[in-house]
Amino acid sequence: MIKVNGKRLISDLRALAQFGKTGHGVHRLSLSQADISARAWLLQRMTEAGLEARIDGLGSVVGQTPGVSRAVLIGSHTDTVPGGGWLDGAMGVIYGLELARALLETGDTAAGGIDVISFADEEGTYANTLGSRYYVGAVTEDELRSAASVGGESLSDALKRAGYAGTRARLDRNRHLAYLEAHIEQGPRLEAEGKRIGVVTGIVAMRRTEVVFHGQADHAGTTPMRLRKDAGAALFTFAKATTAAFRSIAASDTVWNFGRVVFEPGAGNVVPRKASVLIEYRDPDVEVLDAMESAIGDAIEEVNAKGKVRGEAHRNFDLPPARMDAVLAAAIEQAAGALHVPAIRMPSGAGHDAMHLAQHLRTGMLFIPSIGGRSHDTAEDSTEADIVLGANVLAGAVQSILAAG
Amino acid sequence: MIKVNGKRLISDLRALAQFGKTGHGVHRLSLSQADISARAWLLQRMTEAGLEARIDGLGSVVGQTPGVSRAVLIGSHTDTVPGGGWLDGAMGVIYGLELARALLETGDTAAGGIDVISFADEEGTYANTLGSRYYVGAVTEDELRSAASVGGESLSDALKRAGYAGTRARLDRNRHLAYLEAHIEQGPRLEAEGKRIGVVTGIVAMRRTEVVFHGQADHAGTTPMRLRKDAGAALFTFAKATTAAFRSIAASDTVWNFGRVVFEPGAGNVVPRKASVLIEYRDPDVEVLDAMESAIGDAIEEVNAKGKVRGEAHRNFDLPPARMDAVLAAAIEQAAGALHVPAIRMPSGAGHDAMHLAQHLRTGMLFIPSIGGRSHDTAEDSTEADIVLGANVLAGAVQSILAAG
Repeated sequence: MIKVNGKRLISDLRALAQFGKTGHGVHRLSLSQADISARAWLLQRMTEAGLEARIDGLGSVVGQTPGVSRAVLIGSHTDTVPGGGWLDGAMGVIYGLELARALLETGDTAAGGIDVISFADEEGTYANTLGSRYYVGAVTEDELRSAASVGGESLSDALKRAGYAGTRARLDRNRHLAYLEAHIEQGPRLEAEGKRIGVVTGIVAMRRTEVVFHGQADHAGTTPMRLRKDAGAALFTFAKATTAAFRSIAASDTVWNFGRVVFEPGAGNVVPRKASVLIEYRDPDVEVLDAMESAIGDAIEEVNAKGKVRGEAHRNFDLPPARMDAVLAAAIEQAAGALHVPAIRMPSGAGHDAMHLAQHLRTGMLFIPSIGGRSHDTAEDSTEADIVLGANVLAGAVQSILAAG
Repeated sequence: MIKVNGKRLISDLRALAQFGKTGHGVHRLSLSQADISARAWLLQRMTEAGLEARIDGLGSVVGQTPGVSRAVLIGSHTDTVPGGGWLDGAMGVIYGLELARALLETGDTAAGGIDVISFADEEGTYANTLGSRYYVGAVTEDELRSAASVGGESLSDALKRAGYAGTRARLDRNRHLAYLEAHIEQGPRLEAEGKRIGVVTGIVAMRRTEVVFHGQADHAGTTPMRLRKDAGAALFTFAKATTAAFRSIAASDTVWNFGRVVFEPGAGNVVPRKASVLIEYRDPDVEVLDAMESAIGDAIEEVNAKGKVRGEAHRNFDLPPARMDAVLAAAIEQAAGALHVPAIRMPSGAGHDAMHLAQHLRTGMLFIPSIGGRSHDTAEDSTEADIVLGANVLAGAVQSILAAG
């Protein structure tokens, strides 16, 4: 029976949060000095726990239960966005550390072990979800050569600077029974619905479409309304029609965002020559996204049919959905039930390392509540009680997965 | 009988356009070297024409018909916006020069003379319509002390650099019978309606209102639609309601522009925390602007009533209307009629030095067509035939004004 030590778990999380600490949160960009120090600390904690641990050639920290041929893989990432939270990624890794340590403490690894991984650069300082994509063979050597930070440092220079030169870790299908990732929700839903565990059914598909309207810049005082080719007014009309269509298409978990709007030249006395909007839309079901994308096209056609302004759409991002394994989801749900914890099944609206693992290995995820839904912000938080509870639920799930073999 | 020399008029305009020439247009910011050189050239041309001319302490170039106690004042400005047109402002000044010169050539100034002025800094490199506002006593010493360019140079340093230190010119009510300003239309209306002269009835009133919505930044993947406080969506709703209200309020000459829209933080995956829009609206009638401003407030209240996002409006600019003198307008219209030129009465949707003069002296304006309505652009243009025709119409008007006394 794996017994989670809640105090030790919280203590490790608090210790990790010291690396790059900023206010209540953490600023620990991939391959920054704080990140490198945090990885060294994690390597040491894994080793102290009795794991065979190393940092691989991309910076992923991997720890394996010794003397076993089969193991559940538990992990996430320990890098953060600029001014991020202390739990995003870190919690999933420290859950792995605590559960592997607790399993070794039982002295019984007959049913299999627990391996732990902190994937490199999930937040994409050099390349988005680099470690997990490499782990499943989804990164080309070309991408590794060309990857660079916004500041201009190449990934290979950064890795040399960090001294990471070991073999790059890869998924071992013969060894790994499943991949489990725990994460804070990064949204308000668990809190709003009074639940403490989210059993993730899948990571939603996402698309981004940039819509651009081309009109004509004119003096906004001297040009009669009827003679204008107003790209901004076209964008407003488009947004209204698209929003109405999205509402009628939307399923229960559909979300969308008109997150960026730019008018050019952007002056009070000049009719907008150009207006663009970036639309991001997500749903577990690709067919819903197809319908939304069609609605965007229809709304553009309606504007274009008036013959004054010309709109066009560019899909510039398309992420397929990742299905979580039903048996693993049931194991997480049952583990929550055994602890009498209110849980719900829900999709993940955000991307995670798990979405890449899920294409190659059965994968499960659980969420714990985010206070106020805050995420990618130093204000991100969860209660210690929820953090410990999540680890206990995950322990229950791991136990049943190992028992099932 | 004042006889306009069309060739000389075009030749002077082409000569002036060499100062700061860029492509088809002119880049001649106030107190730039090109502007200083252009003013020196203009001073010389005025003097050669027989005017008593000087550059005043703010850079306004003034030329007076000698030996008269009464005169019609004709002018505009010779500075330009960045990358502006060759006629905007310049044409009104060179009309003055040509008409004053042609009057002196008649040898008959018994009915009065023509004074010419190129007002300093109409385009506001240091202070908007500086010369004309100072001329009518609407600039404080405080403003003169604090005025500076975007580049950080103070007006007083720039004036020292230019060597402008003379007495600053002021309106002389005992001398000046009227102020006349000719200008390209800066809009497409004359061309669209097949007219060659616009008789300006007034310069419209204008307001600018900045509307800001405050919501909450949230992860656009993990936050259900119903739990969002989306400042951007609120702005779209507001824009739709406001546009509909504006359409029902609008009189024949009402115009408005949603020219600048900013979403913050402006990322695809973050629900907009803040969204703002700058609305500019113009009409000859202040009551129409009052109704539009009320409609803005009503639309904000509608959004606020939903209790998710809080909107607020700031009026940050309020320009009163300027009425053109009816007798002068009739004189311009009759002069056009005498030449069998198709003319229409129309308001000016753009501001001009004339709007300040009109508060203190009876004022008239005429427009000639802008090809394609282009303005504040190097592509700005008019035909030479229309330029010469405008000068002939103005000459006819001046003659009747002088005759009336």
